Amino acid sequence: MMQHFDKASILEAESFFRRDFINGLSGYKSLNLIGTKSKSGVSNLSPFSQVFHIGATPPLVGVLFRPNTVPRHTLENILETGFFTLNHVTSDFYKDAHQTAARYEGSEFDATGLKEFYLEGFYAPFVSLSPLQVGCQLVETQTLQVNGTVMVIGSIEHIRIDEKGLREDGSLDLNALGTVTVSGLDEYHIGKRLSKLSYPKPGKDLEEIL
Amino acid sequence: MMQHFDKASILEAESFFRRDFINGLSGYKSLNLIGTKSKSGVSNLSPFSQVFHIGATPPLVGVLFRPNTVPRHTLENILETGFFTLNHVTSDFYKDAHQTAARYEGSEFDATGLKEFYLEGFYAPFVSLSPLQVGCQLVETQTLQVNGTVMVIGSIEHIRIDEKGLREDGSLDLNALGTVTVSGLDEYHIGKRLSKLSYPKPGKDLEEIL
Repeated sequence: MMQHFDKASILEAESFFRRDFINGLSGYKSLNLIGTKSKSGVSNLSPFSQVFHIGATPPLVGVLFRPNTVPRHTLENILETGFFTLNHVTSDFYKDAHQTAARYEGSEFDATGLKEFYLEGFYAPFVSLSPLQVGCQLVETQTLQVNGTVMVIGSIEHIRIDEKGLREDGSLDLNALGTVTVSGLDEYHIGKRLSKLSYPKPGKDLEEIL
Repeated sequence: MMQHFDKASILEAESFFRRDFINGLSGYKSLNLIGTKSKSGVSNLSPFSQVFHIGATPPLVGVLFRPNTVPRHTLENILETGFFTLNHVTSDFYKDAHQTAARYEGSEFDATGLKEFYLEGFYAPFVSLSPLQVGCQLVETQTLQVNGTVMVIGSIEHIRIDEKGLREDGSLDLNALGTVTVSGLDEYHIGKRLSKLSYPKPGKDLEEIL
């Protein structure tokens, strides 16, 4: 049975209802811990669900920072130092990942016990336990007129990946990595593969590759 | 065992390997069929994995269109008419959703057999079979300097949802809806909930809400 909400009924709903409802509409979202370090040397770790693909050649990634939300330390550190890392979260430590969103004064690494890992010459910390770690350098930022959302574009400088999750063709096996996905603000899931499908062409039947 | 790729080794890899590798880095992505109709009345349907939350009050959603990729009809129709729909994909019709990415001359609804649904006064078609359908109106577009990626911002005008997927608090039960998530270019998964966690605060243990 389908329920219909028009714009008026969405705006009339309780604000907590609207927040959770609208936040969930896009579906399952990627989950990454973003690692940064302030100029003065305090490391920072925060969960983000709005990381997306911008291009492969050169390799670029984007992150959306919504206005007036908690993890602005992350954005400040990126703008100040130019470096950040993306780290996949697994079912082994997704609760620690969620906890890093609390308003800590010092480093979320210290608060949660997640260990930092550094590459020589790269300022931002990686999450040692993560099976897929990406080191990025700031390229461009843009601000949306409509509500002040900031989009940060980073160039991909380093990738560290658990070899069990990388196939010969370059595709990733997220089920093997144990990567977690998030829906809405606070609900975590693992993925279970249906199939990998062949390239679609008019009049040609699809094949299941995996 | 961790494998390390620096930027030079990423750029030296075969282009098909780099494309799949970089595309998969963000993790599980949302999957939506975007429905549009041209000024001349031809409906269009295309799968998108880059839909994200912009704000709840007013309710806004964003879509990224990468340069030089296939589904530019969608962007043209949105810019011409101002209307588009987002439609969740389930395991029942994810192969049809994948097939809509083929280069058809006419409507992808006709080609795949997916049925259109219209709301009075709303120009773009919804996917009748989808358990979560969102009707949007164009608000703003921005183009990224770095590679010409276009970001489209839409205001959410209508939501149609199968009531089994909407909880009393406004959060969505994507497992109950049967929503599918995508990784890389062509790999489809369903989600399996780990838990929904309480609001994180320093010094307070997390609780599993669901």
